[in-house]
Amino acid sequence: MSDPLRRCVAQLSRFPGIGGRTATRLAYWLLRQGPEVGQEIGEAIAALPSEARRCERCLNITANALCDICSNSQRTSEFICVVERPQDISSIEETGAFSGRYHVLDGSISPLEGVGPDDLRIRELMARIESESIKEILVATDPDVEGDATALYLARLIKPIGVRVTRLAHGIAVGTELEYANRSSVSRAIANRQEI
Amino acid sequence: MSDPLRRCVAQLSRFPGIGGRTATRLAYWLLRQGPEVGQEIGEAIAALPSEARRCERCLNITANALCDICSNSQRTSEFICVVERPQDISSIEETGAFSGRYHVLDGSISPLEGVGPDDLRIRELMARIESESIKEILVATDPDVEGDATALYLARLIKPIGVRVTRLAHGIAVGTELEYANRSSVSRAIANRQEI
Repeated sequence: MSDPLRRCVAQLSRFPGIGGRTATRLAYWLLRQGPEVGQEIGEAIAALPSEARRCERCLNITANALCDICSNSQRTSEFICVVERPQDISSIEETGAFSGRYHVLDGSISPLEGVGPDDLRIRELMARIESESIKEILVATDPDVEGDATALYLARLIKPIGVRVTRLAHGIAVGTELEYANRSSVSRAIANRQEI
Repeated sequence: MSDPLRRCVAQLSRFPGIGGRTATRLAYWLLRQGPEVGQEIGEAIAALPSEARRCERCLNITANALCDICSNSQRTSEFICVVERPQDISSIEETGAFSGRYHVLDGSISPLEGVGPDDLRIRELMARIESESIKEILVATDPDVEGDATALYLARLIKPIGVRVTRLAHGIAVGTELEYANRSSVSRAIANRQEI
């Protein structure tokens, strides 16, 4: 294998989930395309880390000081949805069901992995609660032990200030038949049962 | 999603087998790495089409005029292995069982796809047979209809010149139990049976 090819395969293999075989297949595919294909793909990848930054307010990924959502005056500033990762924002935005802003925690509280509240962007969240006129915090952390612990921690911290703290409802996923729903979803669905 | 991120996801999705979800996962992974990771990967991809070229003799992928194999004086020039694609060379090189040189056809004869002998690098192969002192051509095309047709075509063309034409043996793959071998492998194994 020639050097540029070996180098490209080695670099592609750094991506998680892309092994040597896939990387080789992709590199040979690149060679069969016009030279502009590799250049366009390569430049977009190379530019990403320097062009993308964190939103100064909510820590979302953005090209500017403020992200599209924070700089959108149509979005209410009274309602903040707290997520673990920037990519979680897309899942919520796709629904069109949320009209507030976001705050990215950069993780969740996990004593096992040595991640405590101080390692998350909770300080930044508290500063926003102080300076912006926030009325409700919707905690959208994952429905796992760490996400639950983080939600509970935030509720204990924020509720005493007089701000409403809510959490995404967890239960049986829409489209799932009861027979096939996993045990924890069913037990959450029972605990969170609603009046008809 | 911010523009640099959206652009990177769109570019990564151009790779065959990488859909929007995987591309998004890879882009967010890039953002979590140091900026040099994206730059190194991106540059290797962007550089590949311009740095890699075809070997002037055998059409393998190379960084120089001649590939590593063609420029290695230890390799015999009397024995040429004909492959469909440059990547097939790696499979044969990995065995260490072949000490000759290669010739890449850039495909196989496929009337259904409108690929005839003139669309392949057969002219270049014939020129090599005329100018180099070649004694044997080992045809390593795929064991499918197109590979078979190509092997047969090459044999009819080259044998009359007095050059030996052989083909990779096809049969039951080593490690495969007879019970699980596919039908065409078994029928090839019967036809190519060998004296013990």
